[in-house]
Amino acid sequence: MARIHNFNAGPAAMPLAVLEQAQSELLDMAGSGMSVMEMSHRSKEFQAIIDAAEAGIRRLMGIPEEYAVLFLQGGASLQFAMIPMNLRRPGKGADYVDTGSWASKAIKEAKVTGSTNVAWSGKAENYSRIPKMSELRLMPDAEYLHICSNETIGGIRWMEFPKVDVPLVADISSEILSRPLDVTRFALLYAGAQKNLGPSGLALVIMRKELAERTPETVPIFLRYSTHLADGSMYNTPNTWGIYLLYRTCSWLESIGGVRAIQKINEKKAATLYDVIDASDFWRSPVEKESRSIMNVVWRLPSEALEEQFVSQAKKSGMVGLKGHRSVGGIRASIYNAVPQESVDALASFMQEFERKNG
Amino acid sequence: MARIHNFNAGPAAMPLAVLEQAQSELLDMAGSGMSVMEMSHRSKEFQAIIDAAEAGIRRLMGIPEEYAVLFLQGGASLQFAMIPMNLRRPGKGADYVDTGSWASKAIKEAKVTGSTNVAWSGKAENYSRIPKMSELRLMPDAEYLHICSNETIGGIRWMEFPKVDVPLVADISSEILSRPLDVTRFALLYAGAQKNLGPSGLALVIMRKELAERTPETVPIFLRYSTHLADGSMYNTPNTWGIYLLYRTCSWLESIGGVRAIQKINEKKAATLYDVIDASDFWRSPVEKESRSIMNVVWRLPSEALEEQFVSQAKKSGMVGLKGHRSVGGIRASIYNAVPQESVDALASFMQEFERKNG
Repeated sequence: MARIHNFNAGPAAMPLAVLEQAQSELLDMAGSGMSVMEMSHRSKEFQAIIDAAEAGIRRLMGIPEEYAVLFLQGGASLQFAMIPMNLRRPGKGADYVDTGSWASKAIKEAKVTGSTNVAWSGKAENYSRIPKMSELRLMPDAEYLHICSNETIGGIRWMEFPKVDVPLVADISSEILSRPLDVTRFALLYAGAQKNLGPSGLALVIMRKELAERTPETVPIFLRYSTHLADGSMYNTPNTWGIYLLYRTCSWLESIGGVRAIQKINEKKAATLYDVIDASDFWRSPVEKESRSIMNVVWRLPSEALEEQFVSQAKKSGMVGLKGHRSVGGIRASIYNAVPQESVDALASFMQEFERKNG
Repeated sequence: MARIHNFNAGPAAMPLAVLEQAQSELLDMAGSGMSVMEMSHRSKEFQAIIDAAEAGIRRLMGIPEEYAVLFLQGGASLQFAMIPMNLRRPGKGADYVDTGSWASKAIKEAKVTGSTNVAWSGKAENYSRIPKMSELRLMPDAEYLHICSNETIGGIRWMEFPKVDVPLVADISSEILSRPLDVTRFALLYAGAQKNLGPSGLALVIMRKELAERTPETVPIFLRYSTHLADGSMYNTPNTWGIYLLYRTCSWLESIGGVRAIQKINEKKAATLYDVIDASDFWRSPVEKESRSIMNVVWRLPSEALEEQFVSQAKKSGMVGLKGHRSVGGIRASIYNAVPQESVDALASFMQEFERKNG
């Protein structure tokens, strides 16, 4: 069995060591005689797992006590709805920055339930860059400012985060744990698990506890942060398998040196690809250099026909997930924490060979 | 490694054959060189899995074309909120039957967003029975009638379902696929996966497609059934691992003869326990005979001290999950589809021995 080079955008590559451990204990978790999936979420055994998952995330991200860590379901998409329902009180508005597909989806959802101001949009520039702070047209009394810290589809990311007086809320799905982040700059951070944390079907929310008190009583019980906060993410049965894998993924990351160590690895992987792209006119990066993501590297070839050829030949060479999102086309390599330098090197070599043949 | 006798209420025992297959292909799904958890949900490979899962459920339950099958997240608890948001139009009301803890939780959530009539409540009788049709006090113009077909905590179930003119909605989390069900009697059926379908973190909704058109536009996009229906449960990244295991669980059930075959097995398992309970005054069933669940068997001992002893000695004998829910006490054995007769026989023998020693 040969493991493939996996550049999927999410669900995506998971650390091999984590998968191997999950495989070895799939039928018998720690001598319990059952799978972790067969354990009651109310058992001491599972409580130890969810506690270890939370402790791992807290250590890795340096999350202070006044922040809650919640394990929810519904991915980032349910957060697009829960954030305005919980944090934007009746009659008030919220600011959103439109940096691409994911920010847009959050904006579309926020508009359904209340006043939503688009403080800046990169749409006219094909979402090729992150705005400067001075370009944001913020409302005077917004309840919060929402950003997407890394756009998975557009391949851009915020290097510096906006400094604002209102609570800052960020979707960090596609870059969580990839670089150090000062949690205290944010009121609420959230991420779908299926890029850097584990399998799909789990969402992580990190929020200032006091914010959970804002929610109007007209919001359904299940959709209130306070509900999940009060019950330690156990108001209903959580995704126990996802939480278990998130815990193992955190342990793996700690074992290789944590977020600072993986940042260096990630920057080297990204540089490997950007260096190839920048070395020749055959490849073209559609995004501004200062805004380039180190998780999702996007580029174009001279023609769509060549792009198709690139994707299909790469697949034959054992590299999958390179087709750009259908909404933008082109090529995309998602190189999350679990994608090894070896896979990136294989892709870089393949690109150079492809250019020699077709350039 | 010895597998334990698992009587957990959910998450619960899964078929050993399903777990073994999941283990064997955890690192390499069907020669793809990756785990099913690492596959893009938009890939052909995963589309084939979700299609097979849907086809399996449709065959096993006999679901007609005019019904949608949706794979959602948030468990039954999110459905408690989504059902009234989607099906109860502004200014209208809905009927609910209160048969126990789960029905109550659904009622509590429905009350947050609109008019909710409790058509009957078993609370005063400690939720010991299912009502007769003639006892229900239905509203003249309800949008739907909601029931919980099997109460996991109370151990009671509807043998016959109410005949009403309004759409009938049922939470079948703890008995889905355990006995034949005429889907066409219902407008919407839903179930958390963690009892008879797979791991936690996945919810199944089976609904008349036309019902999805009712939803008011004030409902957040993610919380509309129409959203998930239009996108084949792929509006956002679904719980791919859960869907994969649901597919394998359906295949396993089909391989042993489907729902009619498992019903016989389940009835025999339940009879094994009820026979022991009924054979002596040492054990006491708190529920009416006609309402007894075949998935969750509950009983009492002469004292709480003996109940505690029973649970702890059973654990030492390799039987877990027998403690009744903290809200009601006593003993509960959940004997879902994946719990073999062998485990039930072991429990019955243990009960007889326990009675000899303590009776």
